[in-house]
Amino acid sequence: MSDTNTIVQFEFTKEYLDRLGEAIQNQDEGFVRSSMDGVNPADITEVLHEFGTDESKYVIDLLPIEISAEIIENLDEDTRNDFLKAFEPPEISAFLDCLDSDDGADILNELPVKTREEVIAALENSEKAQYLIELLRYDEDCAGGLMAKELIKCNQELTVEDCIEEIRKQASEVQKIYSVYVVDDFGVLLGRVSLKKILLSNDGTKIKDIYDDDVVSVETYLAEEEVAAIMRKYDLEAVPVVNVKGQLLGRITIDDVVDVIAEQAEEERQLMSGISEDVEEDDSIWMLSRARLPWLVIGLFGGILGAKLIGFFEEDLAQITAIAFFIPLIMATGGNVGIQSSALVVQSLANPSAFEHSLFKKMVKVLFVAIINGILLGVLVFAFVLLLNEETKLAGVVSVALFSVVLLASVLGTIVPLLLDRVNINPALASGPFITTTIDLLGLAVYFSVAHLLYQF
Amino acid sequence: MSDTNTIVQFEFTKEYLDRLGEAIQNQDEGFVRSSMDGVNPADITEVLHEFGTDESKYVIDLLPIEISAEIIENLDEDTRNDFLKAFEPPEISAFLDCLDSDDGADILNELPVKTREEVIAALENSEKAQYLIELLRYDEDCAGGLMAKELIKCNQELTVEDCIEEIRKQASEVQKIYSVYVVDDFGVLLGRVSLKKILLSNDGTKIKDIYDDDVVSVETYLAEEEVAAIMRKYDLEAVPVVNVKGQLLGRITIDDVVDVIAEQAEEERQLMSGISEDVEEDDSIWMLSRARLPWLVIGLFGGILGAKLIGFFEEDLAQITAIAFFIPLIMATGGNVGIQSSALVVQSLANPSAFEHSLFKKMVKVLFVAIINGILLGVLVFAFVLLLNEETKLAGVVSVALFSVVLLASVLGTIVPLLLDRVNINPALASGPFITTTIDLLGLAVYFSVAHLLYQF
Repeated sequence: MSDTNTIVQFEFTKEYLDRLGEAIQNQDEGFVRSSMDGVNPADITEVLHEFGTDESKYVIDLLPIEISAEIIENLDEDTRNDFLKAFEPPEISAFLDCLDSDDGADILNELPVKTREEVIAALENSEKAQYLIELLRYDEDCAGGLMAKELIKCNQELTVEDCIEEIRKQASEVQKIYSVYVVDDFGVLLGRVSLKKILLSNDGTKIKDIYDDDVVSVETYLAEEEVAAIMRKYDLEAVPVVNVKGQLLGRITIDDVVDVIAEQAEEERQLMSGISEDVEEDDSIWMLSRARLPWLVIGLFGGILGAKLIGFFEEDLAQITAIAFFIPLIMATGGNVGIQSSALVVQSLANPSAFEHSLFKKMVKVLFVAIINGILLGVLVFAFVLLLNEETKLAGVVSVALFSVVLLASVLGTIVPLLLDRVNINPALASGPFITTTIDLLGLAVYFSVAHLLYQF
Repeated sequence: MSDTNTIVQFEFTKEYLDRLGEAIQNQDEGFVRSSMDGVNPADITEVLHEFGTDESKYVIDLLPIEISAEIIENLDEDTRNDFLKAFEPPEISAFLDCLDSDDGADILNELPVKTREEVIAALENSEKAQYLIELLRYDEDCAGGLMAKELIKCNQELTVEDCIEEIRKQASEVQKIYSVYVVDDFGVLLGRVSLKKILLSNDGTKIKDIYDDDVVSVETYLAEEEVAAIMRKYDLEAVPVVNVKGQLLGRITIDDVVDVIAEQAEEERQLMSGISEDVEEDDSIWMLSRARLPWLVIGLFGGILGAKLIGFFEEDLAQITAIAFFIPLIMATGGNVGIQSSALVVQSLANPSAFEHSLFKKMVKVLFVAIINGILLGVLVFAFVLLLNEETKLAGVVSVALFSVVLLASVLGTIVPLLLDRVNINPALASGPFITTTIDLLGLAVYFSVAHLLYQF
């Protein structure tokens, strides 16, 4: 085919980008076509992310349809949404004809209902249309929503030779074949046989004599996180999806699950940092501001409540100004402990063990850890306060309050994510501004109450 | 082979666990063997995580060596470390003989140097020993450390028939075959040919006429995060690893990369929540306390510095007690803004774009967003403070200080993770207690300075 030197990884340079921009401006079809010939669609996608809709459409229209379709599939969801508005439904149908049904369904799901129907109606491949209509029925975040209809299956009664013939027939529509799924006359999944085994078996061998019945499958309704956990646990590159009757409906490949895992991590980071929209540094100033404001305003409101709360203790504060000195310490420790606690819960929810320990046992352990750390920090702060030349009474107040706050924050930081998870809210929310704001207020209340009480004696 | 009903997913029950515990106690080999027959090793691993080293060893010794080896490979790193101490070097060698070289090298890397050498010396398969010695040379967190030596390669001059023969010879040692790598006489990687293509081609066809030269490869020194990014970008299930001369050395499969991505997310969560060791809810109370203490103590120290800082302004505070009311508000907002900023930087570092914008442009944008949010929050807080019946002057002080803190936290939250990344520290550290402690102190300094200045007029 060619020699070593043609294994090119596409090189991005600012110069190329400028040159391409110029070529697009001047409608220099030759340059666009030749410079993108043989380049991986994923690389072209990255280049197009640097251009606007019109420029990108110009490039896409010049490329072979299979390449264009893959580029469309690779685009960020937001970019794609805007971008597809520039295309007519039949053009979108042409893209979908080149894509696996799972990717096609993802794209359809983003379109307005009317466009969606026009696109399906315009599909040339009627099997694909049927696949897509079926896939649209499933929730996007369950196994049914992740699966592709394209797969190779064969009846257990076939021979290896028939099976290879079957693969030949079905292969054009299935991009990646890891194994052939074996079904009975009713389409019920029996097992799988790897391509390697087919390749190394005699033509006359019956599939039912060589297939592996120890196959892990998932049902359509399984949540995507659970699908990811199963594929990770069993090191699978693909998992078949079945209905309640055990009939084979589709398969999920590992690349989709890698995206699920990466998106989970991203969502968690956003929740933990109090960013309320899926934004990136590249987004507009206005979008970035808007994504950050909601939690800032909630935090601000918490701060105002805090001010009101301290206001109740104005008299104590007027008498002993030094109480104010330790407000930051109480708040910071409470926040840190709360976030640590909730992060541990989030982690254990993300890696569920088969054998759950009871909530009671869990809480007893949390309390023990809190008591140990609370005592250590309390003693430490007692010494520090004395070192700052404050009186023993204040040192006592601060350390008792700190101990109580550590306990309180540990308990809240453990319970809140568990509750959120119970009501199907991502528990990572409890590792963000939500928990810190709550604990700030409770911590202040505890601190000033302790101060108020102890100073009365 | 068997009918539908035998596709069993292993069911975990407390009863089974108790029964198994009993059987181990009574050395009831029959029950242990029969109840684990045909069960996926990943499930057995999960069961064994519930038992101690002695019980687990009893079970492992009863199982076929290939199953035991896979269980050992599936164990948590910590558990495995303890567990392997119960085995003699030759026993460990027997496990390694059954595992892919990448997994074997991971296990060897955890052993004490002396044991490591004894294990290698005791390996029966001399090719495996050679593989392992080669892999031990690489850093664990680069492409060389992730790759397995087992792969199927063939010379471009072979025919499809020869190639199938080659696969037959090499197949026993390669668990999962996605494609055959094509090399020249010097072992330089030329491309790949999928099993599907081999299966569907005529026996006499030359490999050099059907192979795909558009193959993405990585060099041994590439960082594991970058390997993960490349495999995700190009949707690869395996990627070949080459040396600087382009010679094929090994391959990395997607299951290892899935683990890399998941571990990255876990590490990030720990850094963001100020947990300094890799602990789980299941760990001992002492380990959990120890993992949480370092950042709590640093936070405490920050709090003490904060107290000292407020102490400088004791006179202002004695005159206008209400200044203390808004300490929580300033701190909370500063912390929230700082974490949001650093999380955005961490995100953009995790998804590097091919075309980086300049630091200057980045900072200008950050400042704009900060100014917009700072003004909005400042106005809001001004109104709130007045609503709390405080005087206009205090409202002015709080809102000016808040605006300044938003700016300061945005800039710091952006620069710190960039600096950390530059010196090869995980930038997510800057989304944790580190940034909040720093910003707390600076925020307090700004607030009290503004108060001090404005109250002089």
